[in-house]
Amino acid sequence: MKTVFIGMCGHSMQAYKVLKNRCDASICGIAPGSVHEGMTKSFDPAIPYFASWSEMLDATQPDLAIVSPVFGLTGSIVIACAERGIDVFCEKPIAGTLAELERVEAAVKASGIHFGAMHYLRVSPAFWQGARMVQDGAIGDVRLLNAQKSYRFGTRPDWYRDRDLFTGIIPWVGIHAIDWIYAFAGKKFLSVNASCEGTPERTALCRFDLEGGTMASVTLDYYRPEIAPTHDDDRIRCVGTEGILEVRDGMIHLMNRDGVRTIAPDPAPELFTCFLEGNDLLSPDELFYLTRVALLARESADTQATVAIEN
Amino acid sequence: MKTVFIGMCGHSMQAYKVLKNRCDASICGIAPGSVHEGMTKSFDPAIPYFASWSEMLDATQPDLAIVSPVFGLTGSIVIACAERGIDVFCEKPIAGTLAELERVEAAVKASGIHFGAMHYLRVSPAFWQGARMVQDGAIGDVRLLNAQKSYRFGTRPDWYRDRDLFTGIIPWVGIHAIDWIYAFAGKKFLSVNASCEGTPERTALCRFDLEGGTMASVTLDYYRPEIAPTHDDDRIRCVGTEGILEVRDGMIHLMNRDGVRTIAPDPAPELFTCFLEGNDLLSPDELFYLTRVALLARESADTQATVAIEN
Repeated sequence: MKTVFIGMCGHSMQAYKVLKNRCDASICGIAPGSVHEGMTKSFDPAIPYFASWSEMLDATQPDLAIVSPVFGLTGSIVIACAERGIDVFCEKPIAGTLAELERVEAAVKASGIHFGAMHYLRVSPAFWQGARMVQDGAIGDVRLLNAQKSYRFGTRPDWYRDRDLFTGIIPWVGIHAIDWIYAFAGKKFLSVNASCEGTPERTALCRFDLEGGTMASVTLDYYRPEIAPTHDDDRIRCVGTEGILEVRDGMIHLMNRDGVRTIAPDPAPELFTCFLEGNDLLSPDELFYLTRVALLARESADTQATVAIEN
Repeated sequence: MKTVFIGMCGHSMQAYKVLKNRCDASICGIAPGSVHEGMTKSFDPAIPYFASWSEMLDATQPDLAIVSPVFGLTGSIVIACAERGIDVFCEKPIAGTLAELERVEAAVKASGIHFGAMHYLRVSPAFWQGARMVQDGAIGDVRLLNAQKSYRFGTRPDWYRDRDLFTGIIPWVGIHAIDWIYAFAGKKFLSVNASCEGTPERTALCRFDLEGGTMASVTLDYYRPEIAPTHDDDRIRCVGTEGILEVRDGMIHLMNRDGVRTIAPDPAPELFTCFLEGNDLLSPDELFYLTRVALLARESADTQATVAIEN
């Protein structure tokens, strides 16, 4: 399987590490996704470097492209790959606008390519196991969820100030929390009301109504102090009719009729390895849906209006 | 100082304990606030029992009334006391509707009575101290707040199912979280978007925009499992430009440039004792404001619309 890398802005290093350890794959090229990326050569001398990703695709004729450019360019490159019949594993969000998302979905479906995206936090071990526990009934019917992502801002590229290139804190960061809510609740989103603030965007707060009267919030910030013990502070709190399950500090905290427990999660599957082996942990339809929800949440923040989510 | 008790539904027992230990106060009567309360005699044989609170007021001519009936009746009794020139320390919410709140405010202001309310959680030690730390600049400018109240439902009276009598989970429970947000952020509320669900109401989620682009959520539930180690799970997370402060499990968790610390709070002042001594920790104007915010949040949930909050 011939693989290329387009951009290294997001989490494609995780895919690189997997590919380096597989004897059924070769990495035959790497190219920046855009002039914004400052990538002047391959980080691995064994991989041929191309200044233009489209020329690289022509020259290498790959089976699979790992697409992780400046975030706002992902969708257009996914479409180009789909049109060439190249399988894609790309960074989230898979599109930067709702119109582009429609084009991505159409291109992926028309081409029949194998399509996956780096929703890596779905398989963050405590979240992966916690969602399964909730779906297996550990807390009864889910009524209320609060998901949180908090990051250090540290040093970020200038293009984080440009909505077209960054996409925004809700599509870039919040989509993980939206993903958790979907995985834990197992319910569709009906509407969203959100705010987001800062240039670059530093905070956001989204309120969702889900099916069956279930409600959820997503809290996002880039204000985690440098001194904090970890880069991120990922959490979810999930209130059900029969108990409460929380993920915090990488552990699962469960209260239900069986008692009060803190559970260290088992290792979770590796998302990209599963993709390579044809075991998609998130289907393309799920990716289209979660991206649409995130983009509608951003639209709510931009328009200061509640936005309905069609299902 | 002659004192009477009207209703014992809320937290008036805390006021009773304070009064029993003061030599400058006498308790000269107790009466139910309504037929819904099932109170057939005084819980303290030393206190004369009256079947009618208005007859009690006529008979005892008290200086101060502790008002804690079925929640939805508080406002009307406060007005009656104010019209008789009797000082009032009452349960929250101080009114059950926006129209009644206007009447309460007018009656309190016209009478010039000393007026306080049982916003006891303002002085919950970790919250009291945490708010002061944030107001003293421990985390810079406050950008984002998440407040939570989670309770066991246990056994509640039937009138929790009646909005007119219960007032709702947002005015009854959520007002404490709104109070914390106000005390921690020190900023006015601009708008609210909320949901609430269940009969009786079991969950609610409110999203507020505050002055200066600050945003806040209030998460409420009555699903805390019976097996939980405490009756309630009160929290706030407060994200600032220079750090993050949380209150959880009765402790203050602070991350800022000085380090990562968990702080056991000092004892806080006793709200009713302060009231008796003329040191109002919440002014009447603050009580009117916080009640209005809570009732507007309920209106948002009822109408499924974002509601503006005038300041």
